[in-house]
Amino acid sequence: MRTDRREAGQTRPVTITTGVNKYAEGSVLIEVGDTKVMCTASVEERVPPFMKGQGKGWVTAEYSMLPRATQTRNQRESARGKQNGRTMEIQRLIGRALRSVVDLHALGERTITLDCDVIQADGGTRTTSITGGFVALALAVHKLSKTANFTKYPIRDYMASVSVGVVGERAVLDLNYEEDSKAKVDMNVVMTGAGKFVEVQGTGEESPFSRAELDELLGLAESGIAGLVTKQKDVLGEAGSRIGTATV
Amino acid sequence: MRTDRREAGQTRPVTITTGVNKYAEGSVLIEVGDTKVMCTASVEERVPPFMKGQGKGWVTAEYSMLPRATQTRNQRESARGKQNGRTMEIQRLIGRALRSVVDLHALGERTITLDCDVIQADGGTRTTSITGGFVALALAVHKLSKTANFTKYPIRDYMASVSVGVVGERAVLDLNYEEDSKAKVDMNVVMTGAGKFVEVQGTGEESPFSRAELDELLGLAESGIAGLVTKQKDVLGEAGSRIGTATV
Amino acid sequence: MRTDRREAGQTRPVTITTGVNKYAEGSVLIEVGDTKVMCTASVEERVPPFMKGQGKGWVTAEYSMLPRATQTRNQRESARGKQNGRTMEIQRLIGRALRSVVDLHALGERTITLDCDVIQADGGTRTTSITGGFVALALAVHKLSKTANFTKYPIRDYMASVSVGVVGERAVLDLNYEEDSKAKVDMNVVMTGAGKFVEVQGTGEESPFSRAELDELLGLAESGIAGLVTKQKDVLGEAGSRIGTATV
Amino acid sequence: MRTDRREAGQTRPVTITTGVNKYAEGSVLIEVGDTKVMCTASVEERVPPFMKGQGKGWVTAEYSMLPRATQTRNQRESARGKQNGRTMEIQRLIGRALRSVVDLHALGERTITLDCDVIQADGGTRTTSITGGFVALALAVHKLSKTANFTKYPIRDYMASVSVGVVGERAVLDLNYEEDSKAKVDMNVVMTGAGKFVEVQGTGEESPFSRAELDELLGLAESGIAGLVTKQKDVLGEAGSRIGTATV
Amino acid sequence: MRTDRREAGQTRPVTITTGVNKYAEGSVLIEVGDTKVMCTASVEERVPPFMKGQGKGWVTAEYSMLPRATQTRNQRESARGKQNGRTMEIQRLIGRALRSVVDLHALGERTITLDCDVIQADGGTRTTSITGGFVALALAVHKLSKTANFTKYPIRDYMASVSVGVVGERAVLDLNYEEDSKAKVDMNVVMTGAGKFVEVQGTGEESPFSRAELDELLGLAESGIAGLVTKQKDVLGEAGSRIGTATV
Amino acid sequence: MRTDRREAGQTRPVTITTGVNKYAEGSVLIEVGDTKVMCTASVEERVPPFMKGQGKGWVTAEYSMLPRATQTRNQRESARGKQNGRTMEIQRLIGRALRSVVDLHALGERTITLDCDVIQADGGTRTTSITGGFVALALAVHKLSKTANFTKYPIRDYMASVSVGVVGERAVLDLNYEEDSKAKVDMNVVMTGAGKFVEVQGTGEESPFSRAELDELLGLAESGIAGLVTKQKDVLGEAGSRIGTATV
Repeated sequence: MRTDRREAGQTRPVTITTGVNKYAEGSVLIEVGDTKVMCTASVEERVPPFMKGQGKGWVTAEYSMLPRATQTRNQRESARGKQNGRTMEIQRLIGRALRSVVDLHALGERTITLDCDVIQADGGTRTTSITGGFVALALAVHKLSKTANFTKYPIRDYMASVSVGVVGERAVLDLNYEEDSKAKVDMNVVMTGAGKFVEVQGTGEESPFSRAELDELLGLAESGIAGLVTKQKDVLGEAGSRIGTATV
Repeated sequence: MRTDRREAGQTRPVTITTGVNKYAEGSVLIEVGDTKVMCTASVEERVPPFMKGQGKGWVTAEYSMLPRATQTRNQRESARGKQNGRTMEIQRLIGRALRSVVDLHALGERTITLDCDVIQADGGTRTTSITGGFVALALAVHKLSKTANFTKYPIRDYMASVSVGVVGERAVLDLNYEEDSKAKVDMNVVMTGAGKFVEVQGTGEESPFSRAELDELLGLAESGIAGLVTKQKDVLGEAGSRIGTATV
Repeated sequence: MRTDRREAGQTRPVTITTGVNKYAEGSVLIEVGDTKVMCTASVEERVPPFMKGQGKGWVTAEYSMLPRATQTRNQRESARGKQNGRTMEIQRLIGRALRSVVDLHALGERTITLDCDVIQADGGTRTTSITGGFVALALAVHKLSKTANFTKYPIRDYMASVSVGVVGERAVLDLNYEEDSKAKVDMNVVMTGAGKFVEVQGTGEESPFSRAELDELLGLAESGIAGLVTKQKDVLGEAGSRIGTATV
Repeated sequence: MRTDRREAGQTRPVTITTGVNKYAEGSVLIEVGDTKVMCTASVEERVPPFMKGQGKGWVTAEYSMLPRATQTRNQRESARGKQNGRTMEIQRLIGRALRSVVDLHALGERTITLDCDVIQADGGTRTTSITGGFVALALAVHKLSKTANFTKYPIRDYMASVSVGVVGERAVLDLNYEEDSKAKVDMNVVMTGAGKFVEVQGTGEESPFSRAELDELLGLAESGIAGLVTKQKDVLGEAGSRIGTATV
Repeated sequence: MRTDRREAGQTRPVTITTGVNKYAEGSVLIEVGDTKVMCTASVEERVPPFMKGQGKGWVTAEYSMLPRATQTRNQRESARGKQNGRTMEIQRLIGRALRSVVDLHALGERTITLDCDVIQADGGTRTTSITGGFVALALAVHKLSKTANFTKYPIRDYMASVSVGVVGERAVLDLNYEEDSKAKVDMNVVMTGAGKFVEVQGTGEESPFSRAELDELLGLAESGIAGLVTKQKDVLGEAGSRIGTATV
Repeated sequence: MRTDRREAGQTRPVTITTGVNKYAEGSVLIEVGDTKVMCTASVEERVPPFMKGQGKGWVTAEYSMLPRATQTRNQRESARGKQNGRTMEIQRLIGRALRSVVDLHALGERTITLDCDVIQADGGTRTTSITGGFVALALAVHKLSKTANFTKYPIRDYMASVSVGVVGERAVLDLNYEEDSKAKVDMNVVMTGAGKFVEVQGTGEESPFSRAELDELLGLAESGIAGLVTKQKDVLGEAGSRIGTATV
């Protein structure tokens, strides 16, 4: 049994609280076990210079951790004067994942920026950011749909993310920090509501892995993500009802 | 009457929740009206290079706002590659204010870093950071006192902060963002539990102010801060019982 | 008596030399004791992007110290790659102080930049910069008034600044570096020619101060600033004659 | 058929030239079609501060493109003052991949830095850097083995990398730039000589992909990498003979 | 005799290979002894902001060394976050040298950027960059001349560069790294095909030099550069035939 | 005749005022026509890390211009976050020039930093910085000689610098800004008291120059520098009496 008494294929408790910020067009606080991420979606009626005049929108993400989100305090990136490689890699991943289910033409010349700020970290901050970020995005698009005259609803499908890995000799779902730090294989998977893959990022830095292990991990991820999507649907309710439909 | 129906000398509702971070030695979420600041105190058993070997400790602060803490999204300082002047000014102020009630020799060669991260901003973020930061600091020192063999309790007094200003023709206490943006005079005051001044920062950029106005503003601040210190005492309870005493 | 034999309420000798730069629209070298600051006012016929099209002007300031302005050499901020917090705080203060007596609408869509470069520092560099910067600004506006067709003279009043503090047990005016480094309370005050406050910034990092002490310090500042304004009037002469009048 | 007349499962011509730098402990110029990367391995007899005293070594990588490696000139990162997210992500990947086949304890307290500089880019620069970087690393370790008294040979296995993707409706191996820019799914795979996975990074930003597609892509990658490893063995010859053996 | 058996007035073997980059408008790999520099000329149909609307073009250069171009590895400037003084000085020199033989009005509103990337360094990297950069520039202009409707051929003359110095007591031509590191006087000279000076930069940091020594060094440089220009003419052939002529 | 009525071979009036800074070990304000540079020499009893333990000292220089030293205001380099290429090039030149007449072994493990801050610029700021910087250096070494127990006097010779150039068709000495901006050839020359060359930097960006022109310019520089060295000797008096002698 795992240290927190979970089964191998069991995620930690997930709570998604919406409307946690009075200014943002969409906002959630997502908690997956002790990992807590504040996700806000901000809508701007313009696109970055490199996209001007193409009649389509843009979705991007930024990721950060509060200095004491972790066991020992980390130096603030604004004080160091630059974002580190891990931060950049994660925010590029979140942005790509979100864009994979957005119809940028249907969105029109707007930018939606997802800010994922980790309040407390206990493993899985990037996957939690994606799962929560999707809900914040969906809320913002729902709000926008009331005024924006979309010709097509801009979100094509649900999308969520989870980590899987090999800890000891065992494939497990949704690693916490303790498990993550001793995992031999570590994989982050992003999937749509329809069960297709958006991102698969597996790393065996400590120990290369076999095709069989990869298959087992992907299976765990599929079931975990299905559960997270169900959760997203519950939380969004009416606000998610037009996702993936023709209705505007 | 003020737009939120407060009296001139009335603060907004104040809530201080402790223990909001599982790693930090002291942590609080302080809410003053719609302004919400997460304050964590991190203890490290070393001092910055410029203080080594002096047998005394250091207390410092960092301040930041989440990008969507405000009505329109602000660019992340880590992405811009530097902290702006306002941020630096505020974090210098918070650090000075906290040090004013700490006996650095009694603390010993340790650094306590206060991180004040504004989750949502509606005026008074720097004063709220100071008031909440003091509680986080007090919790961290209380925890430390169980293991550190202090020869003297390192906190000399309570300390809190509030803003005052002239809005319209009227002196008011604890300005929200709307009031702040149209104030002719804006003043931040930091005081100790004993009613002494630690910082007085008054600015009449739009309109210079008279000695009489200054006196009225200071009076409002004194009463507001007294109320905040009472709140701090309630919240800290036993953890604050040795502040300003000889007991270790 | 003070180490330099001054009375508690006496400023150091003040010299303001105008026309020290052949290019700047206004320039002075101000000396207050051994503190020497070169102040130049540069006029540009445009405003920063965030102010465009509002029909009003902008006044801003930058502050710097030569590396050997102080007892030991300081690293150049351009070599370090950023301005430190102290520099930013001071230049924000100088800018706010100068704007407080300028009618930005009357100025029109122009920017005046005050550069305050400390040639030698012996305490009070920020207050000296404000006092000298005002004269450079007044000279530049006077020069501009000959060609600019102002509908109203853009300077509303004189303005000067001085430091006060508690050294030992005694409130004193215009601290030099030696006094400043051992002061328990340190306050910078900016006032207009009409005797109103523009900025009051008092800090008791080492030792909180009482309302009575604050009152005594403000009294010293009032008398010191009155003397500095008299000096400014002498130096400006005709060039200052329309300050605060309806005449254009 | 593909635009360059290759079969779906065929890589571009691969050339690996060794000894292209007179100073580096190991160096190769690797050409995969029109993609050309200079890889040098530099050995230093020290480890980064965070690894001191652990009795083990470190392998790290840096990646860069010459400004005109691409169709239109890119701004130099040193002129912009920072590395972009893509660069950081790639060099982190290369470093992880290389470390996965190195026994850091056997290496001893040394750092080997792989510099992968893209001279000309036509798709697959990161996978080419890994494949070529491994050869440079192997050459450096072979050279080191003559003087270093290893107790165990520090390279555990061969390792190479290739890209696969879905272009049109078809899974193809080793995409060139033209294919890459229109691929719906893009995957980079790193495998060992023994056929185990080190990294699997698949992205369907434009179009999520099914488990069946993923399986087909992994199959292509396996065969492509096997071919690259054969090439590496040819090129290394005697210098690779102790890889994965007990012999020192 | 010199360590590599050259006569005092003899350059190292020079090889210039053209067409080494499939994207650049002009490209060469120049080898002078063991110094190897990749030079690419990139043409853009716009000029920098400060030159807009003047009806003339711009030629600029950037210089960099691969980290392991030298005996010990140098930190990458993009990782350090800024270009060092040596790099800036060299790229300013290369840019000035190239502009000296270009008729910017004849070029029209275009920018040509020369990237000189040192693949391997063994002394004389800046002079080699100039000599090779000229050929890349000439190739780019030749290519441009087929489509650009020049009213005048934009290159006025050939141009090349060499180093000279005093090593031991002897004036020598084209110093390699070993000679350069022990030279008492070091001089870089740039001259046109017509034998006029574009740049003369002589330094006697270790030992000031006499007018006679200067004269001897200039004589060596003149003969060395004449040889390099002959080489450039051979390499360019037809592509250089209109340099310095009225023909377009 | 030149616009300021000087002869071709005549320098502008030169004034060197010593002791202008109360903290620096050596300080001068040098005025050459309207160019004014403050030069301070700061002595520190340590050397940079790369020179530790070699038993010798270091001399380095930093150069900067006040923002309004020029006709139009320049952005402050500390605000831009980096020094530009021109600044770096100039301070490297000043440092090299000063070191050429200092016996670093005789100086011992000390660093002398020359800060050359241009108060007002009218051409020739780098040569003026060198000429004035030498005097500040000499004053600092003279002061140091009273306490440092030198075994040999660390300054080997006088050194000064001047610009020469071709304006119109005429070679002239010591160009002011107006002449400099229209010069076809621009050359900075640094020479010792003994009449040897330390640096010769000639540029004909606008128009290559002949050997005869170069010779004429060097002749003008020789006579100009001889005059500046005479001036330096007058100013230093006794403080310069041991320069170039065996006496300590």
